[in-house]
Amino acid sequence: MSRPLDLHPDRLLPADPATRSLARELYQSVARLPIVSPHGHTDPSWFAGNAPFGNATQLLLVPDHYVFRMLYSQGVPMEALGVRNPQVDPREAWRLLAHNYHLFRATPSRMWLDWVFAEAFGIDVQLGADTADHYYDTITEKLATEAFRPRALFDRYGIEVIATTESPLDSLDHHAALKAENARPGGWQGKVVTAYRPDPVIDPEFEGFRENLVRFTEITGEDCLTWSGYLAAHRQRRRFFAQMGATSTDHGHPTPRTADLSRTEAEALFAKVTSGSFTPEEAELFRAQMLTEMAGMSLEDGLVMQIHPGAFRNHNARVFERFRRDKGADVPSRTEYVANLKPLLDKYGNEADLSIILFTLDESTYARELAPLAGHYPCLKLGPAWWFHDSPEGMRRFRRMTTETAGFYNTVGFNDDTRAFLSIPARHDVARRVDCGFLAELVMEHRLEDWEAGEVAQDLAYNLVKKAYKL
Amino acid sequence: MSRPLDLHPDRLLPADPATRSLARELYQSVARLPIVSPHGHTDPSWFAGNAPFGNATQLLLVPDHYVFRMLYSQGVPMEALGVRNPQVDPREAWRLLAHNYHLFRATPSRMWLDWVFAEAFGIDVQLGADTADHYYDTITEKLATEAFRPRALFDRYGIEVIATTESPLDSLDHHAALKAENARPGGWQGKVVTAYRPDPVIDPEFEGFRENLVRFTEITGEDCLTWSGYLAAHRQRRRFFAQMGATSTDHGHPTPRTADLSRTEAEALFAKVTSGSFTPEEAELFRAQMLTEMAGMSLEDGLVMQIHPGAFRNHNARVFERFRRDKGADVPSRTEYVANLKPLLDKYGNEADLSIILFTLDESTYARELAPLAGHYPCLKLGPAWWFHDSPEGMRRFRRMTTETAGFYNTVGFNDDTRAFLSIPARHDVARRVDCGFLAELVMEHRLEDWEAGEVAQDLAYNLVKKAYKL
Amino acid sequence: MSRPLDLHPDRLLPADPATRSLARELYQSVARLPIVSPHGHTDPSWFAGNAPFGNATQLLLVPDHYVFRMLYSQGVPMEALGVRNPQVDPREAWRLLAHNYHLFRATPSRMWLDWVFAEAFGIDVQLGADTADHYYDTITEKLATEAFRPRALFDRYGIEVIATTESPLDSLDHHAALKAENARPGGWQGKVVTAYRPDPVIDPEFEGFRENLVRFTEITGEDCLTWSGYLAAHRQRRRFFAQMGATSTDHGHPTPRTADLSRTEAEALFAKVTSGSFTPEEAELFRAQMLTEMAGMSLEDGLVMQIHPGAFRNHNARVFERFRRDKGADVPSRTEYVANLKPLLDKYGNEADLSIILFTLDESTYARELAPLAGHYPCLKLGPAWWFHDSPEGMRRFRRMTTETAGFYNTVGFNDDTRAFLSIPARHDVARRVDCGFLAELVMEHRLEDWEAGEVAQDLAYNLVKKAYKL
Repeated sequence: MSRPLDLHPDRLLPADPATRSLARELYQSVARLPIVSPHGHTDPSWFAGNAPFGNATQLLLVPDHYVFRMLYSQGVPMEALGVRNPQVDPREAWRLLAHNYHLFRATPSRMWLDWVFAEAFGIDVQLGADTADHYYDTITEKLATEAFRPRALFDRYGIEVIATTESPLDSLDHHAALKAENARPGGWQGKVVTAYRPDPVIDPEFEGFRENLVRFTEITGEDCLTWSGYLAAHRQRRRFFAQMGATSTDHGHPTPRTADLSRTEAEALFAKVTSGSFTPEEAELFRAQMLTEMAGMSLEDGLVMQIHPGAFRNHNARVFERFRRDKGADVPSRTEYVANLKPLLDKYGNEADLSIILFTLDESTYARELAPLAGHYPCLKLGPAWWFHDSPEGMRRFRRMTTETAGFYNTVGFNDDTRAFLSIPARHDVARRVDCGFLAELVMEHRLEDWEAGEVAQDLAYNLVKKAYKL
Repeated sequence: MSRPLDLHPDRLLPADPATRSLARELYQSVARLPIVSPHGHTDPSWFAGNAPFGNATQLLLVPDHYVFRMLYSQGVPMEALGVRNPQVDPREAWRLLAHNYHLFRATPSRMWLDWVFAEAFGIDVQLGADTADHYYDTITEKLATEAFRPRALFDRYGIEVIATTESPLDSLDHHAALKAENARPGGWQGKVVTAYRPDPVIDPEFEGFRENLVRFTEITGEDCLTWSGYLAAHRQRRRFFAQMGATSTDHGHPTPRTADLSRTEAEALFAKVTSGSFTPEEAELFRAQMLTEMAGMSLEDGLVMQIHPGAFRNHNARVFERFRRDKGADVPSRTEYVANLKPLLDKYGNEADLSIILFTLDESTYARELAPLAGHYPCLKLGPAWWFHDSPEGMRRFRRMTTETAGFYNTVGFNDDTRAFLSIPARHDVARRVDCGFLAELVMEHRLEDWEAGEVAQDLAYNLVKKAYKL
Repeated sequence: MSRPLDLHPDRLLPADPATRSLARELYQSVARLPIVSPHGHTDPSWFAGNAPFGNATQLLLVPDHYVFRMLYSQGVPMEALGVRNPQVDPREAWRLLAHNYHLFRATPSRMWLDWVFAEAFGIDVQLGADTADHYYDTITEKLATEAFRPRALFDRYGIEVIATTESPLDSLDHHAALKAENARPGGWQGKVVTAYRPDPVIDPEFEGFRENLVRFTEITGEDCLTWSGYLAAHRQRRRFFAQMGATSTDHGHPTPRTADLSRTEAEALFAKVTSGSFTPEEAELFRAQMLTEMAGMSLEDGLVMQIHPGAFRNHNARVFERFRRDKGADVPSRTEYVANLKPLLDKYGNEADLSIILFTLDESTYARELAPLAGHYPCLKLGPAWWFHDSPEGMRRFRRMTTETAGFYNTVGFNDDTRAFLSIPARHDVARRVDCGFLAELVMEHRLEDWEAGEVAQDLAYNLVKKAYKL
């Protein structure tokens, strides 16, 4: 017998009745605000091409490393789920998910998926072995309809603007097409912007770094094997990205280390890392120097800088060999900000025109390092709870550990940071609920007035992200 | 005037009335489940010999480093408590505990002791200076009765199976005797198994390491001063332990560092550490290599592997000189898993037949390292909140920080990990109460359905531990 | 229209009604206890001279780095706030605070300031752009009255004793004057003691270290450029501080590293660091050695030792150049206690007559390192949640993460550690409320009896601090 699927209107609100009632009121005041998604990994071709999404497995299982990592951790082979395995019967893969759905109890993936099932697809029974085929058929059929094409969902979801993330080597053709579409009379008005993510041409340890520089040279016409040409290429490409709507850059380094080398030192280091023969320490130092260079360029062109450090990427050697990147085998590691950021901050830290948004996977830095830094330096803001911490408990820890020292106004609202397009409203909804719950608790303890909580709720859900990302 | 001792039926359940009522219901559904104790330090001779336990001080004070460490921290000399001091009058030692019982307010020791006093001994007044002698007499008298012999308590406590922990140098005579007793018609049926804890022959810095290897040679007939003989001795001894019921090994290393050396390198390193002249780094590397060797053997013989890293043992030099090991002077230290485990995981991480249970004393790794690792690698599971964290707040932090990324099903239920036999039901009871409180909170926030919470409660209290430890 | 300012009597008490009612009762039993302030940075000249405090900006904005750091983080120049800028119109500076007061929502500064506004100055509307001048005038006028002179406030606030913090180079003239005043028939009876903070003559990296040693020599008549003279000077100065009421020393080192060098080694190191040419490691080792020396002297003279490690001071190079120390640019960093304290603990750790109070800015050490250390070593106690963590959430984390292992009786009550004199009652009030809330939660979960909670509340608010600091 299948169980009903039923999203409770009070989900995620605190249990205490008076607090819940306050939280509900706050939540209702922000629940319908437009979605501003300033950082994420949706594919611009979806919106440019507007093709249907395919079947349930292709859309919801194969690309979502949050989902298949959990199944894999319990012994389900990734091949059987269709990950880099087009031979698999997608219905069989879906059944594996359905059969193991209990593994996701109390995880954010479960919450996001249930939202997608109930709200996007109107399914009213819980996913399980007995309902696997019902799910597969319902979802796959609906995906074939007009209402489930990317643009229709974008509009239905009330997305005001969404940012994708591209390498400097990307042509941004889809963004150009979308710009044209926006400008076309009667054209689709959805706003999809890019963000400048230069890791492939900044990180000497990135796969194909040298080939990437060759390509960087071809695209920009600058000689990217000289330090000055390389910097000029960045400047040029950043400008082009900004023309395609980008308001931000993004840097996914292993650590937040920064450096401030002399021009001669930087030039010598660049020669080293582009020679193909360099030590890990030299690679690290080059990334460090480039964060400072990027900050300098941000001061020039106004792009907001995001730093997403601390992931040990591709930790599982065999999974990387067989399945490549982004297969759920990235693991956070201890991250140090205070000493690492000092060179950059010594140079640019007091520039109120510069905006650097810091993220972390190491929650022990929230209260110890990040909130104190952001509560002092004019250029620093704190990105929201990220990745493994983009979850109810994770968000609560973020607020509890940063607010007292950094306040609300050194934070920047919510990022969904996802490629799981259908779950975007669910993710923003979780953030709004958790923030309103937190605010209600503050009001209940008389640490905030109710009218202030109302203002802050609007700020956290909408105003801060617009301002911080200049969107 | 003495105060009543009264264990409230709702203790440890959340304060919010609706949440409490739900938690109570969940708790009642698991409160009477049998106790499965897969890892601990009870003495097998208790059950083999079934002799009475002695007096209150001998049983409850002298062996419990949780208790005397707190008294010592407030200036009570350990000698006066009878620690390695048989001259002390046990009643006087008991009075010191009674007089200082307020020091334990809000500690788990207090909770466990009160349970033992009330439930095991039926005492109904609180321990204090005024009731010290009443306590001493009541407990000591009861301990002389049949009902308080080890086997009677084992049966009364509903213990389905308990694991002790032995060195490879242990003869396991008590386990053999118990096996015979189990097999004897009409014999006692209590199931007491061992676990393979090879630190004394793996850790070059362990007291008497070289003598231990000599003994290892004698016991196994393998030449344990050659690398191949040494490995063969482990294989042989593991097999013997498995025959005596062991389903697991246990490794108490300072760090979770692992290595994957070539045979030649490993052989040279072994020669070094057995020569008696080696550096701390060589000792660490040898322990690292041995974790990987042990994992390989686990793949062969099916023993579940437990890693308990992160304790700085015997931190207090004078206490170690005078009182030796396990005297409350072990202190946790920062522990790193992501880089440390990589060599082992590169070799065996994707083996779904291998089972490695990770523990930590460094809670900053729960959400940052351990949950992400266990939520990906098929061979990894998370042990419960351990040692200093085996407490209501500690358990809550464990669930709040691991569940969203690792789920419930990459955890393994509860371990009491104690030598304080009488407190075992109290410890399991605390875990069940805290877990049910956590589940009730999830249900109240509509993050879990009530029927799911009911299933998970059973799993956390009973099913997961049976499966994870193959018991 | 201005909003009412209204301190709710139940502020900071838990939201659950039954818990709140219990917490309220506990709080009421300690709310009026005298304030014992064993560590802080008020200026003894205030009490010795008893001059009026000046205007609102001079008193509440310019000296409070908690306040101007937040404004600075949002782009308000410090000069405009009057920090090291006497040219500024104080009313204009005040308006900047008022205009930006929303930045402080949910911060402790907001809570302390609101208390000062409402309780000290009787203001009944919230601070904001519209009430800026009303605030400025009201506060400034009241500050000119007798009732707002330092001694009157001291008496009105029910301060039993307050400790200031002075360098060994300080003449302690104000303390001497206060001693005389106390002794004068009909003289003011307020008790203001000093504390021995020798960083300027212990830390080789302190500004003017060598000049400070010259001055140390002049003051003491000991040759402070010889190791024996230097140690003798400390002994002499500590004695003098004790005569001026000091019961404690305080050490603000970057790390809690300790060392136990031989006399020859120490002498050589001292020669090195006083030569003006030394490495950072040598400076660190010297500080380390001096912590052990100070502990030895504490055993002789009975002064309680406080260690406040872990701040990266003056992180912002430009702010330091322009505005100097204590301008909100100190940032906590990761701190290690277990290995660092071992040399000192090996030497003195088992001395029950020695009392060392440990503080931290790294909360990840609460449960992992500090509570286990304090729950074992007789000489160690834990200072309260400090600096960035002296806040409701910070204090709750402190209790939740230390109590189960260290108990309440290895902690020392509250420290306000502030130079913001007017906020002292507010800070103690926050601590009392939060502690009573924590105790009420324990009672509600039946982890503590109500009568025990009552006793502990008194201990946390008053008895422990008196005992720990010998006040």
